[in-house]
Amino acid sequence: MSGNVRLSIVQMRDAGSSHACIDSAIRLIEEAAAEGAQIVCLQELFHGPYPCQSEDHRMFDLAESIPGPITERIGKIAKQHEIVVVAPIFEQRAAGLYHNSAAVIDADGSIAGVYRKMHIPDDPLFYEKFYFTPGDLGFTPISTRYAKLGIGICWDQWFPESARLLALAGAEILLYPTAIGWIDEEKQEFGPGQLDAWITTLRSHAIANGIWLAAPNRIGIEGRLEFWGSSLIVSPRGEIVVQGDHNTETPLTADCAIGETDLVRTHWPFMRDRRIDAYEGLLKRWID
Amino acid sequence: MSGNVRLSIVQMRDAGSSHACIDSAIRLIEEAAAEGAQIVCLQELFHGPYPCQSEDHRMFDLAESIPGPITERIGKIAKQHEIVVVAPIFEQRAAGLYHNSAAVIDADGSIAGVYRKMHIPDDPLFYEKFYFTPGDLGFTPISTRYAKLGIGICWDQWFPESARLLALAGAEILLYPTAIGWIDEEKQEFGPGQLDAWITTLRSHAIANGIWLAAPNRIGIEGRLEFWGSSLIVSPRGEIVVQGDHNTETPLTADCAIGETDLVRTHWPFMRDRRIDAYEGLLKRWID
Repeated sequence: MSGNVRLSIVQMRDAGSSHACIDSAIRLIEEAAAEGAQIVCLQELFHGPYPCQSEDHRMFDLAESIPGPITERIGKIAKQHEIVVVAPIFEQRAAGLYHNSAAVIDADGSIAGVYRKMHIPDDPLFYEKFYFTPGDLGFTPISTRYAKLGIGICWDQWFPESARLLALAGAEILLYPTAIGWIDEEKQEFGPGQLDAWITTLRSHAIANGIWLAAPNRIGIEGRLEFWGSSLIVSPRGEIVVQGDHNTETPLTADCAIGETDLVRTHWPFMRDRRIDAYEGLLKRWID
Repeated sequence: MSGNVRLSIVQMRDAGSSHACIDSAIRLIEEAAAEGAQIVCLQELFHGPYPCQSEDHRMFDLAESIPGPITERIGKIAKQHEIVVVAPIFEQRAAGLYHNSAAVIDADGSIAGVYRKMHIPDDPLFYEKFYFTPGDLGFTPISTRYAKLGIGICWDQWFPESARLLALAGAEILLYPTAIGWIDEEKQEFGPGQLDAWITTLRSHAIANGIWLAAPNRIGIEGRLEFWGSSLIVSPRGEIVVQGDHNTETPLTADCAIGETDLVRTHWPFMRDRRIDAYEGLLKRWID
């Protein structure tokens, strides 16, 4: 568990239909496999448009169960190439019960585990609380053939708590499938700052936890949203190893030396010094 | 509590003696006051050299009690200019009991409160565990005439937990008096990355908590350490508003609009969505 892992993250645009999105994803997964990737992580809700720009009941039709047709199709590709694939999907868990989830497909095609987005946003054009019940599986890394993966989805990345919990539970790589972008009318004034805050926060989790981290983010314009791509893989020192642009559909690949985590953590030994005797307030909504 | 506060942070070098350091600090505090500062924050252990480059019993002679001669002298300046001063000192609490502390002097010259560094580092040339007992006052903001101050000291800043706890307890500005720098033999290879990781982590706390943040850091070469200055004030969006260089002794001043915190937190509503039902693991050393 301390060797090199070749990781690819895939940024892509909505291809117009679920069928076409899955085809795009498979083409990009196979590109990544050809580059020698052992783990491929797709973006949030990869099998369609970002569905939460309005509160529209028709969007529930996009959802699928896990296991279901998508995990079966991805499972075949995973098995064929002996790669792990993280497939974030709109999950129907039961009648009237939906999650923003990620199925982790192991290198033998089986489902290694599922993560269900714990922190659900709700902002203009990101009406996720209408669609998704907050996850109830906690912050639990998922073991795969090549590494133990700690998964958060999009909004989760703004919470240092989730990165820390995944790290404490032994995650070797943090993965944040994402769909974040600019709102048309805000882009000029706030756009650069928003992108910079996103990158800064991702890098800070890598630094605070001395851990590899990657975030594949959607590209393309959908309605009033311009997804900013900029997908990145970050080292345990917080260095950006590879980064995408705003509009190229591509896998981005890097070798992640898992052993660096112990090296970094013994040089900046934050794990040694946490004051767990004084952190009770973190379980409170507010400290009055 | 939602107006503007003019904040100054002071970066300075060791002036060779405790007496000379205090004189330097007072000169710089008065410079800040002349710029209209209402709150002035000095750097970690401002009244001498950074004392922890070796385990040397003579260094305990630098310590003082709170209240003591330093807080009295600073108190007079604070009262005279009606300013709040954060004075981080090597505190002798009792015979054989020392802390790395910050006394907060209110604008009437009284002691508003004390913070004792909670996370104590110990690394080559930073042998703090030899000198300082970890703080036992928790992460408790200190109310002053102009703002409620959440204080961490140096190593504390690497822990997202302490920023979060101070924010949850109602801090309006986070202050991190610091003494961080490059080790001679590491600077060329790791120096830029270390500085960048420090800045990234500070900015990430401002972003994650939607809060003003500032860190005054020491300058000058002491033994094998080159303190990198780069003191900075950061907005609740994570933007650097003002930043020092590596070697100029100076106050750095900015107006902090405390009301921006509510604005930022309602636009990126992380406080709304924390999953306090699922954070118990944060109180554990490791999650097996």
